[in-house]
Amino acid sequence: MRISELSAKSGVAIPTIKYYLREGLLHQGQQTAATRAEYDEAHLRRLRLIRAMLEVGRLPVASIKKVIEAVEDESLPVHEMLGTAHYALSPAVEPEPGEDWQLARDQVDRLIADLGWDIAPHAPTRDELAQTLVRMRQLGLPIDLTPYAETARKLVSEVEMDKIPFHGPRDAAVEALVLGTVLYGKAFDALRRMAQESESARRLSP
Amino acid sequence: MRISELSAKSGVAIPTIKYYLREGLLHQGQQTAATRAEYDEAHLRRLRLIRAMLEVGRLPVASIKKVIEAVEDESLPVHEMLGTAHYALSPAVEPEPGEDWQLARDQVDRLIADLGWDIAPHAPTRDELAQTLVRMRQLGLPIDLTPYAETARKLVSEVEMDKIPFHGPRDAAVEALVLGTVLYGKAFDALRRMAQESESARRLSP
Repeated sequence: MRISELSAKSGVAIPTIKYYLREGLLHQGQQTAATRAEYDEAHLRRLRLIRAMLEVGRLPVASIKKVIEAVEDESLPVHEMLGTAHYALSPAVEPEPGEDWQLARDQVDRLIADLGWDIAPHAPTRDELAQTLVRMRQLGLPIDLTPYAETARKLVSEVEMDKIPFHGPRDAAVEALVLGTVLYGKAFDALRRMAQESESARRLSP
Repeated sequence: MRISELSAKSGVAIPTIKYYLREGLLHQGQQTAATRAEYDEAHLRRLRLIRAMLEVGRLPVASIKKVIEAVEDESLPVHEMLGTAHYALSPAVEPEPGEDWQLARDQVDRLIADLGWDIAPHAPTRDELAQTLVRMRQLGLPIDLTPYAETARKLVSEVEMDKIPFHGPRDAAVEALVLGTVLYGKAFDALRRMAQESESARRLSP
């Protein structure tokens, strides 16, 4: 298809498509004349992925580039490719100076080991969780994350993972991961606050 | 205790305490001389609550005022008081024009009815969830929220609600609700992404 049709089908404006082509986020089409190129389904899929990362994942262009490099590097196993997208979605957390941080970080590592989870040593989620634990400890909250971890594991293994098309096109798997992580995460967060309201009503209403 | 001791015990600077007193967020102490007042445990609890809403809940002062009015209005049942804090924590969502919005909003109301949850008709979480559903539909994601709702309900009723001291001082109950909602929410979100990484490793690693 021509660029105009690619624009119509994807809902992405032609100047934006040209910007993605210049930035290397979208691979070039098949040149058919000096000023004309043909695009195909793979371009459509890539545009969907870019929009997912930009609009739903709210990732900066630099992070999107890294994820797309991983998508294009066919020698990279699917698990590593998904990890690149996953880590891009995690907020960057700076370790804090002091003993509290090291205590919390050790607690996170111990929790992961106790659960028997397979998490890379450099996964940004370790620092992210440690930051929340530091805050909890400073505020005197009880810190037993095991029920939360068990709940997350059950949800992910029984419901979420089946939605990722691991064995289709690489773009589609990453897109599903990004959309699913962000949007079902938002939905769960709202549902949890709803459940709190409902349970509070049940326990406290006359 | 004097204001200097209140400051030392709460970790809140004296000028900040004076600002809270002027704004009516913190109730006045017992005047013992023209320029001297006595503060007590209730002031300490209130300062903890203000910090929780400000630093962890990231609520604007106007919202904090509303919550504190609810805390101070002893005629307001605990469930309503907690609801005020809860609703302040929910992002404000504007209904979008168009059919998609109404469809999503109907779907949310139906889900709540099917679950038999006790959620106020004006709860902001209804619009919040509808907004996420609109996005999911536009992006072609499968929308079956029942497993998420069931998971949230189980977590809330079996783990979270027992942490709220419903029958102690009103400040303490609201503080526990705000801290718990925000911080355990953050922890769950990180744990969910960890579980995804671990499950992806389990399914895809050679």
